[in-house]
Amino acid sequence: MSRTLTTTDPRTGTRTDTGIEPTPDDAVDAIVERAVGALEQLEQHPRTWRADLLDALAASLDERRDVLVDTAAAETGLSAVRLNGELTRTTYQLRLFADAVREGGFLEAAIDHAGETPMGPQPDVRRMLVPIGPVAVFGSSNFPFAFSVPGGDTASALAAGNPVIVKAHSAHPLTSRASYEALRVGAERAGAPQGTLGIVYGQAAGSRLVGHPGVAAVGFTGSLGAATHLRAVIDERERPIPFYGELQSVNPLIVAEEALRVRGEAIATGLAGSVTGSAGQLCTKPGVAFVPAGAGADVFAAQVVAAMKDAAPGVLLNDRVLSSFRAAEKELSEAPAVESLLGSAEDLGGEGLAVEARVLRVHAAQLTPAHTVEAFGPLVLLVDYDDTAQLLGALEAVPDSLTATLHVEDDDLPTVAGILPQIAATAGRIVFNGYPTGVRVSWAQHHGGPWPATNSFHTSVGITAIRRFLRPLAWQSAPESLLPDELRDGYRGVPRRVDGVLEVAQA
Amino acid sequence: MSRTLTTTDPRTGTRTDTGIEPTPDDAVDAIVERAVGALEQLEQHPRTWRADLLDALAASLDERRDVLVDTAAAETGLSAVRLNGELTRTTYQLRLFADAVREGGFLEAAIDHAGETPMGPQPDVRRMLVPIGPVAVFGSSNFPFAFSVPGGDTASALAAGNPVIVKAHSAHPLTSRASYEALRVGAERAGAPQGTLGIVYGQAAGSRLVGHPGVAAVGFTGSLGAATHLRAVIDERERPIPFYGELQSVNPLIVAEEALRVRGEAIATGLAGSVTGSAGQLCTKPGVAFVPAGAGADVFAAQVVAAMKDAAPGVLLNDRVLSSFRAAEKELSEAPAVESLLGSAEDLGGEGLAVEARVLRVHAAQLTPAHTVEAFGPLVLLVDYDDTAQLLGALEAVPDSLTATLHVEDDDLPTVAGILPQIAATAGRIVFNGYPTGVRVSWAQHHGGPWPATNSFHTSVGITAIRRFLRPLAWQSAPESLLPDELRDGYRGVPRRVDGVLEVAQA
Repeated sequence: MSRTLTTTDPRTGTRTDTGIEPTPDDAVDAIVERAVGALEQLEQHPRTWRADLLDALAASLDERRDVLVDTAAAETGLSAVRLNGELTRTTYQLRLFADAVREGGFLEAAIDHAGETPMGPQPDVRRMLVPIGPVAVFGSSNFPFAFSVPGGDTASALAAGNPVIVKAHSAHPLTSRASYEALRVGAERAGAPQGTLGIVYGQAAGSRLVGHPGVAAVGFTGSLGAATHLRAVIDERERPIPFYGELQSVNPLIVAEEALRVRGEAIATGLAGSVTGSAGQLCTKPGVAFVPAGAGADVFAAQVVAAMKDAAPGVLLNDRVLSSFRAAEKELSEAPAVESLLGSAEDLGGEGLAVEARVLRVHAAQLTPAHTVEAFGPLVLLVDYDDTAQLLGALEAVPDSLTATLHVEDDDLPTVAGILPQIAATAGRIVFNGYPTGVRVSWAQHHGGPWPATNSFHTSVGITAIRRFLRPLAWQSAPESLLPDELRDGYRGVPRRVDGVLEVAQA
Repeated sequence: MSRTLTTTDPRTGTRTDTGIEPTPDDAVDAIVERAVGALEQLEQHPRTWRADLLDALAASLDERRDVLVDTAAAETGLSAVRLNGELTRTTYQLRLFADAVREGGFLEAAIDHAGETPMGPQPDVRRMLVPIGPVAVFGSSNFPFAFSVPGGDTASALAAGNPVIVKAHSAHPLTSRASYEALRVGAERAGAPQGTLGIVYGQAAGSRLVGHPGVAAVGFTGSLGAATHLRAVIDERERPIPFYGELQSVNPLIVAEEALRVRGEAIATGLAGSVTGSAGQLCTKPGVAFVPAGAGADVFAAQVVAAMKDAAPGVLLNDRVLSSFRAAEKELSEAPAVESLLGSAEDLGGEGLAVEARVLRVHAAQLTPAHTVEAFGPLVLLVDYDDTAQLLGALEAVPDSLTATLHVEDDDLPTVAGILPQIAATAGRIVFNGYPTGVRVSWAQHHGGPWPATNSFHTSVGITAIRRFLRPLAWQSAPESLLPDELRDGYRGVPRRVDGVLEVAQA
């Protein structure tokens, strides 16, 4: 029996041997130890060098675009258009983090000078954020670039100044290896110390990695089940470490009355596109859509069905995603009072891992947690609601999510204002008159949500993702020569809070 | 058998019945439910009202200063001078958080306008931090004000906009009740909603509290043992919540060669004062002091002993602290190669919980983790080191701490610069030419450290303590009327990052 990793083309079901051996324990240990060694050397590089490193990684990925996209297409079944877009997003993200590193606000530099205070004479105290140490990164199957080897966790951990060790995803080992190679070459060109980047293969190596005393944090995007396994390994550690997990999300979408009346068809079409894009395998896919009951809801449902029927059959990422989707689909379609409007629980039986889109429907009065399990694939449950009170009650059956979406017109605003606090309490991002898929990568973005969407306040999208891999350090009465540049009195290259007053950087 | 709580005067050992009943489960549940209700109402109050609330709490505490200090003195054995200073610090801290709430930088408001980007057209995204919900606060025995009912956890959770439920400390129930009453009156004057503040009594009530689904986070200052108990209860919750614990700290202090030569006696006296202040019951007490071996070290040791012999016997806080201190003292004095310079492992046998100061000594070559257990009381271990390499090796036997202290002169700086990265990796605050006790309450302060000092990056001192009780929320394409004031285009009252550029507030 071969011990090497295999990979499967979901478009055809063809399984091939990658020739990649799972990383043995002693090799994992050596990789972590090199990362620990790299940390000290990274600290001696100026902040601007780190920004250049991120740019070099982006450039190296761009240079290998064709082979990366081809490799990922064969391992994920995602289209070349989608994968090209994802790779562009990934390199854009690396460069955005480079900008943020140059800007320096993420350091949260603060200086309180010595002096008389209402508490008497007080010493000089200065504070900024410093790297925490090697970060282990576990990517997801559905974003082979943006949430995998070269994704947001890797970018933000490197931006913070930490070495990164990625665990190659079992569903796209060749893409992981090719992405890692691109990063390695980029890091070499930038003159990064040995051990700045590392990769391990195989589930046992992943467990070894998160249990290693040299690892300081874990970034994870994936299923609650895999997270629970890693969490158990982390709980066995002598020294606890943060585990940032993006886990699951149902993403309710609510159509208000006037919005349905004015532009119901456009919303139905947009919803269908958001549910079927990437075969519904997006953490922000809207899984449950609430629509005002009545004739308008019937029309809306027919429009969603028509639009989703027209969508090409989706190819799921791998066997595990397929069996999870089948299980969720079965559970949902057999839940009380559910009506099936499109598709059936039967397998298509075609080539590879193709599935047809599914539309289910239930009335809000019947909604229970059994109706709101996450179905990772092209499925949406339409929920008819009679009034706002019933809507609010039904929303309690929806697990807290990464996003909540509202379609509203001006006339709906008074009603929506009343329920917004309750909705905001259950999500990390509130989307108005749009769709939650297609997460903008930008300074103000936040990708996270209350449990079980994520197990921490932040995940890997948006500039504050960097903060997860930093810790505060305070210097009291330090001689100037021992202070980091950014905390010296004369330095003005980063925003700082001086004696309580925020000062912007000066060129 | 009475079920009411008792309290003991550590100065005399006299135990009295407080008449306070432990809070039954259904009352705990009702208190949490009121807090959940208060959250929504608090969200409707403007930010400036919250600042006024914190000021009102401070004023109400100040008004009751005499009775609070007397009550705390009788329950803790701490001096009136120390307790008055602590109460001043506590009200100062409330007012500092009020200033921070008015200033608004803690919201981290950010706006990315819609527009063309390298990723194509992108929607408007705005983000700021919002309250997470009711916070449970567990204070410590050694700071009956500053780290108890009206302390930093309470102040920062309220500053964030959350209701707070405190668990009264079993060693100072009357002080807890009197402090809570002061807060309650202040909150009432400020017009705070019912349920903004709550208090529970007894260990079972504390467990019930942290297990309640309505509680969103826990702030804790105390022993690793008590933290482990609460952690286990939290781990049983369906929905995990953050647990911010300040746990233990040994706080190494290092004297460099030239510093010893130039001002050894002053350092010895300062160290003795820092070790014996508040009978050594401070989380930042320097527990291990490294001194260059040789004749200078002998003189230094004699000076420390002389200064500590002169200190009045310390009265420990309670039986539990006494027995822990005795156990640690015994373990340390019986550790290999330890020499006892002052005091003995015998009990003084005097009134109440008085103990004498202890000075132990060992050579760095002999130092092991058995020599560096935390002794919460007036004890210091002097460690002679031959050279920098030996010092670094010996420091590995010291658990990571809240602080590390260095006494250096200019001639020492080149050597210290070489070892600073290793020292910085083991502490949250590096103190130069001072003592770690007496934590400045200010914007730049940080009170936390790598495990086992704390189990998270932040604790309750310094303005960023507020962030622990906030979560990010993003609004995408939101109608202006549904945005919080701070995220509307025309608003300029708080610092904001707009399209990536940091802008200070305008008056």
